[in-house]
Amino acid sequence: MDFAPSARAADLASRVRAFVDDEVAPVEQRLLADVAARRARGEDAWPPTAEVEALKRSARDQGLWNLFLPAGEGDEWAARFGTDGGTGLTNVDYATVAEQTGRSTLAPLVLNCNAPDTGNMEVLLRYGTPEQQEEWLVPLLDGRIRSVFLMTEPDVASSDATNMAATATPDGDEVVLDGRKWWTTGAGHPDSRLGIFMGLTDPTAHRHRQHSMVLVPMDAPGVTVERMLTALGQYDEPLGHGEVSLDGVRVPAGNVLLGPGRAFEIAQGRLGPGRVHHCMRLVGLAEKALELACERASTRTAFGKPIANLGGNRERLAEACIAINQARLLVLHAAWKLDTVGIEGALSEVSEIKAAVPRMACDVIDLAIQLHGGGGMSEDFPLAAAYAGARSLRLADGPDEVHLGVVARQLLRPYATRAQEAAR
Amino acid sequence: MDFAPSARAADLASRVRAFVDDEVAPVEQRLLADVAARRARGEDAWPPTAEVEALKRSARDQGLWNLFLPAGEGDEWAARFGTDGGTGLTNVDYATVAEQTGRSTLAPLVLNCNAPDTGNMEVLLRYGTPEQQEEWLVPLLDGRIRSVFLMTEPDVASSDATNMAATATPDGDEVVLDGRKWWTTGAGHPDSRLGIFMGLTDPTAHRHRQHSMVLVPMDAPGVTVERMLTALGQYDEPLGHGEVSLDGVRVPAGNVLLGPGRAFEIAQGRLGPGRVHHCMRLVGLAEKALELACERASTRTAFGKPIANLGGNRERLAEACIAINQARLLVLHAAWKLDTVGIEGALSEVSEIKAAVPRMACDVIDLAIQLHGGGGMSEDFPLAAAYAGARSLRLADGPDEVHLGVVARQLLRPYATRAQEAAR
Amino acid sequence: MDFAPSARAADLASRVRAFVDDEVAPVEQRLLADVAARRARGEDAWPPTAEVEALKRSARDQGLWNLFLPAGEGDEWAARFGTDGGTGLTNVDYATVAEQTGRSTLAPLVLNCNAPDTGNMEVLLRYGTPEQQEEWLVPLLDGRIRSVFLMTEPDVASSDATNMAATATPDGDEVVLDGRKWWTTGAGHPDSRLGIFMGLTDPTAHRHRQHSMVLVPMDAPGVTVERMLTALGQYDEPLGHGEVSLDGVRVPAGNVLLGPGRAFEIAQGRLGPGRVHHCMRLVGLAEKALELACERASTRTAFGKPIANLGGNRERLAEACIAINQARLLVLHAAWKLDTVGIEGALSEVSEIKAAVPRMACDVIDLAIQLHGGGGMSEDFPLAAAYAGARSLRLADGPDEVHLGVVARQLLRPYATRAQEAAR
Amino acid sequence: MDFAPSARAADLASRVRAFVDDEVAPVEQRLLADVAARRARGEDAWPPTAEVEALKRSARDQGLWNLFLPAGEGDEWAARFGTDGGTGLTNVDYATVAEQTGRSTLAPLVLNCNAPDTGNMEVLLRYGTPEQQEEWLVPLLDGRIRSVFLMTEPDVASSDATNMAATATPDGDEVVLDGRKWWTTGAGHPDSRLGIFMGLTDPTAHRHRQHSMVLVPMDAPGVTVERMLTALGQYDEPLGHGEVSLDGVRVPAGNVLLGPGRAFEIAQGRLGPGRVHHCMRLVGLAEKALELACERASTRTAFGKPIANLGGNRERLAEACIAINQARLLVLHAAWKLDTVGIEGALSEVSEIKAAVPRMACDVIDLAIQLHGGGGMSEDFPLAAAYAGARSLRLADGPDEVHLGVVARQLLRPYATRAQEAAR
Repeated sequence: MDFAPSARAADLASRVRAFVDDEVAPVEQRLLADVAARRARGEDAWPPTAEVEALKRSARDQGLWNLFLPAGEGDEWAARFGTDGGTGLTNVDYATVAEQTGRSTLAPLVLNCNAPDTGNMEVLLRYGTPEQQEEWLVPLLDGRIRSVFLMTEPDVASSDATNMAATATPDGDEVVLDGRKWWTTGAGHPDSRLGIFMGLTDPTAHRHRQHSMVLVPMDAPGVTVERMLTALGQYDEPLGHGEVSLDGVRVPAGNVLLGPGRAFEIAQGRLGPGRVHHCMRLVGLAEKALELACERASTRTAFGKPIANLGGNRERLAEACIAINQARLLVLHAAWKLDTVGIEGALSEVSEIKAAVPRMACDVIDLAIQLHGGGGMSEDFPLAAAYAGARSLRLADGPDEVHLGVVARQLLRPYATRAQEAAR
Repeated sequence: MDFAPSARAADLASRVRAFVDDEVAPVEQRLLADVAARRARGEDAWPPTAEVEALKRSARDQGLWNLFLPAGEGDEWAARFGTDGGTGLTNVDYATVAEQTGRSTLAPLVLNCNAPDTGNMEVLLRYGTPEQQEEWLVPLLDGRIRSVFLMTEPDVASSDATNMAATATPDGDEVVLDGRKWWTTGAGHPDSRLGIFMGLTDPTAHRHRQHSMVLVPMDAPGVTVERMLTALGQYDEPLGHGEVSLDGVRVPAGNVLLGPGRAFEIAQGRLGPGRVHHCMRLVGLAEKALELACERASTRTAFGKPIANLGGNRERLAEACIAINQARLLVLHAAWKLDTVGIEGALSEVSEIKAAVPRMACDVIDLAIQLHGGGGMSEDFPLAAAYAGARSLRLADGPDEVHLGVVARQLLRPYATRAQEAAR
Repeated sequence: MDFAPSARAADLASRVRAFVDDEVAPVEQRLLADVAARRARGEDAWPPTAEVEALKRSARDQGLWNLFLPAGEGDEWAARFGTDGGTGLTNVDYATVAEQTGRSTLAPLVLNCNAPDTGNMEVLLRYGTPEQQEEWLVPLLDGRIRSVFLMTEPDVASSDATNMAATATPDGDEVVLDGRKWWTTGAGHPDSRLGIFMGLTDPTAHRHRQHSMVLVPMDAPGVTVERMLTALGQYDEPLGHGEVSLDGVRVPAGNVLLGPGRAFEIAQGRLGPGRVHHCMRLVGLAEKALELACERASTRTAFGKPIANLGGNRERLAEACIAINQARLLVLHAAWKLDTVGIEGALSEVSEIKAAVPRMACDVIDLAIQLHGGGGMSEDFPLAAAYAGARSLRLADGPDEVHLGVVARQLLRPYATRAQEAAR
Repeated sequence: MDFAPSARAADLASRVRAFVDDEVAPVEQRLLADVAARRARGEDAWPPTAEVEALKRSARDQGLWNLFLPAGEGDEWAARFGTDGGTGLTNVDYATVAEQTGRSTLAPLVLNCNAPDTGNMEVLLRYGTPEQQEEWLVPLLDGRIRSVFLMTEPDVASSDATNMAATATPDGDEVVLDGRKWWTTGAGHPDSRLGIFMGLTDPTAHRHRQHSMVLVPMDAPGVTVERMLTALGQYDEPLGHGEVSLDGVRVPAGNVLLGPGRAFEIAQGRLGPGRVHHCMRLVGLAEKALELACERASTRTAFGKPIANLGGNRERLAEACIAINQARLLVLHAAWKLDTVGIEGALSEVSEIKAAVPRMACDVIDLAIQLHGGGGMSEDFPLAAAYAGARSLRLADGPDEVHLGVVARQLLRPYATRAQEAAR
């Protein structure tokens, strides 16, 4: 047993942290202020910015680009698209890096490691034809375009993915897409070009074979970003979350990944690493919030003492520290399980982190807000946005309750089987 | 012991509830959509609206106006300004009514019962000269103008009110106000005319005699609303929370309420009922959130069942119901203590509700958000705004921790005394 | 709305408190030490004691006897058996008194107000024939004998009362009882004479008409107290909890209360007030634990301060105070509902307190233990026993989860109905 | 990063688990029943038992003996006293093993790895003279005698170890011990022979140099085990916790380990690994409780379903699983820190586990109790004893609050320093 990160992971994590804190953070602050000012003037709040492009180039120059590419499957692409070391990273190594990217909301995009682009790139990498890879994966890996994942729907409980009612109807050598999606992350970005759409193809098939996953250009006729949504008041620029309607959108039948009815199979492979990434970024975000809380609590004074020394504040800070450390280890362990036994052997582990880590992050950030007083609620600190982000992840990619259900199923399976046998 | 509300309170609460649900709620929804649209177009998002004025007239016509006016001290004003029944309400009667006003963020203003106007009116009613009452209290009671309370400061930990560093410096027959305040609720409203400012007058006096409370017209030279703040992304229109600078603002010495150094004495009397109002509105808000949660959980289906019947959802809804009922009783009891023994005898009770109720409301609203899925985070439901409001009240009017400290002090006093005596 | 107890309740509560603290508490301490010593010597640890009998006489002489007798139905018996004032108390008045009896584990018995005797007496009072009342109710009201309730079974999940598998089989003019019961409170007391047994009579009937309730003398042939159980290591002398086997026990058919198949109907009426009593005693127990905690925290010193002033201790004490106050109000309100609308209208209220109050008591007592250090775990303080008692009540009379289920059912009923109607 | 245990640890853990479940558990059950029966008959409940001795021999024969001996310092003793492999184990390897020993309360003693003997043996190993090692360490390693640690005192808040008031007064070539200790684990065991006593030697010295640690034979004149204590009703046989008085006990001055005033230095080295052991055993205990809970919840039926499928039970079981997994990783990581940087670099980590793990274990065991219904409270399942054990560890070896304080101090140190610098 060895808790030390590999030399490569340690080096990358340390360089990413420095890059995020020293280069990304100042730009991010200006960018968000600029977005707010543009919005206040009624101008477009989602413009491409030269500063972000410069940061992307800098990241790439430093070899901090596309680090999400997985060891093995992703090696070839890593060699071609500038990942440090020229090969993909294991899940556990990348998790160590991803923690540092979570310290900033802008950093993942700057490092070309943000959701949903990473998941979409993995889908293309694994299931795309060479032509699809050239058309979409290459510009995505280059950071020239962005992509969205069209899954959640406003009209059904999307925590049960079999509920999805938007349709992907084969029609000769085309497939026709209809329906309404929301929480489509990235829909606000001006570079958004590709959507991966999940739609109902055959309602008579087995419940996990009814849906298809389809590549759809965002500028296809019939695709409309109806509006951008706020999550606890945040637009989450520069990606944002859109509500998107699809009205008789026609794409070639070849755009159906793996063919009709394979959506669940594709989604499955997509979600293990994605949840590790989300959770590890949240660990970094919580760590950042705790740093801010410690800083504030040590420098503000009330009733003659630093706030840290009032009432239960020290204990709460200690609890937050423990919670973060436990969460980090749980995520790293889940990543290691993915590396060593694959997603099939790590179903419980992946759901454990997805259930536990967003709540931990919410709690830690909430404490940081409380210690900042009114300032913590405002836009003067990144805490309100951080809270909204962490809170969203108690719903996105499956709500807490669904993941607890997965954990319970794995946990109880042997007992239920024994109980059934005993009952015979 | 009798838990039934008085006939008057029951009647008023029932009429207020109908008014809020049937008349205010539809306007509120339109108003907030309009505000969002104006803001998106870069237009002024804080306009006076004819619809709101019409609602105010309707409330007044129905005798649902200025119901906050306290029995006894407020009777005369109640008779003059249209409170139903012509006399003020006891705290416990008004608490029953206030619960219903909490179902809508707009309702308190429409009923002329919103913070901080109510607190300011009570201050004027109790400490204002007849001239000040004519100048400011009358138009406030008429709903023609609005007011703000300039207390919290960005640069000091305002949970300790003795920290306030803005100054109120006597200069001949004037007093000069300097400093920076924030979380100045109401500063965004176009009718905002009067500020009650708390400033440091004599740093050498006893720590609770250093500060003064001063009436300041918001259009006085040197008063600037620097910006409007967001709380968890919400501007809380139509009142809003401002950051306000005061730069050499001169007002007559007579504007210092009760004279220099009396700010704490004035604040004390202001806060008991105000905290009951806040908490009782939060009870109503939580109840509303629970209704929405029950509605959603009963009508959305996942995994073949109404969401209510999945996992621990029924238990969580039951827990929320219990939490609301406990909180309501605690607030009503605190109000009854205020009525029967006054603030001096109800210090613990008032701090108990202030510490307990906002957290309860946050928890219930958070559950409602979770049961609404992504929708709960968006502006399509009033839950994100409700959460921000409840969360703010864990800080406003004293953070949880300060109130727990008050409760502990009352609780431990007899033991500490005995321990000291034993140690002699 | 009036939170003041009635003059009669206030007077009784004050006299009961003085009696419990001044007369019962010292005897209790000696008694428990004596029991421990006897047990250590291998002697009978359940002896009748002259001291307890003297306390009972004293209670009766002071008019503090059988105070549980309900207003209305119980008035006649109250007049005959010495209740103060000669009439029964309302639920809300008795709740005020019951809180004070909860300060001591011995007090309820001394006041002839302990479970399960009170519930059994109410059953006899309501459903017994005049002959049964003379035979059993009179000596119970006199405190000459004690009784048990034979319901919970070791071999089935007794949280679902329809699971009960012990049988009450009619056989001519007799009924034959067979099966095994446990957690039979009072089975250890030497005066235990009467059992009320719940057994399965007709497995083919509607699930709430299958069981009967039968009076059974504890000295009937075939009734055996197999052993006394510990709950978290406590025997809960002098009543205790037994495991009882019934093997072909024959009693007259007339012992079946109301006739066969009526057990659920009888149990229903029994449980509303009983749960109020349990919960209100727990409020008193928690209050007592908090007093001990405050005392200890104010007098012990570590790191140069009274323990109360270390870390989050003051906040935790304040939270405990708030939790107790909320719980008390919730129980009083439920009692008031029972008084004003009866059990049918108070199903949710009664389950709310049963779900909330034992957990509150556990939390407060656990805090008191923590503040007492090792001593809190030992028998030197009443806290370990108090914890065991409160923890038991998270299971006895229906586990938390069952009660939350009842609350949820009441809460969701209107929504489910509307949802079904909408679905048509 | 590698989460797989070393081959040696994996092998030992697997063999220990099999030994504990297959050999120790059945004996334990009989032993505890026998103890209860003896106690009920007023006989000595603390007899040596041949069965336990046989288990000890079996453990030793299988090389599962003294596995606690630390790599490096303990290697020589490991070679001599039969540890598997002939060398000591790293902390992380032993932690993996210790988890399995926690599944049974008897197992640690059978494996000669129980507290406080392990800590005492480490003290002798590190600070004892060769003569003291021959006299005491050898028979301890042989399992021929047992030992106690005389530290906690009934009359002072022992969470602050500088409070200890019992005295160790040098008097020529002797030292005289006076005072009263309690929670002296092992004092009930008939083989208890050696005490390590902490006493005040020089109240005028620096607060961490006032106390001495002294070897004292338990049969020295003046040493009296006054009574055995219960913890939540449990005597914790066969070791038990005693209250011990020392009255003018004289031992040679050479018995003062390292000389006068060195107690804190010695205690420090003792506690890091000891806390890892305690916490890892609690992880095993919680895992065992969760297994019992899953078993019970899968086989008992209520309301037509296995209990597992009622309400929030599946979610609670999943939460317990997550909590255990997080705790295990946190403990293993702390052990790894001890191995790689030593106690000075792992102060926070050791306090983090001590604050977090006992509470986790209490919560999991409490859930298991709840799912067992009344049975869970009784002695028919090991859960009541498990709860008492876990609850005790929220106090023993420093209460939660003290450890949270240590974590906070480490966490805040850099901020406090910066704040002080900034203030200059």
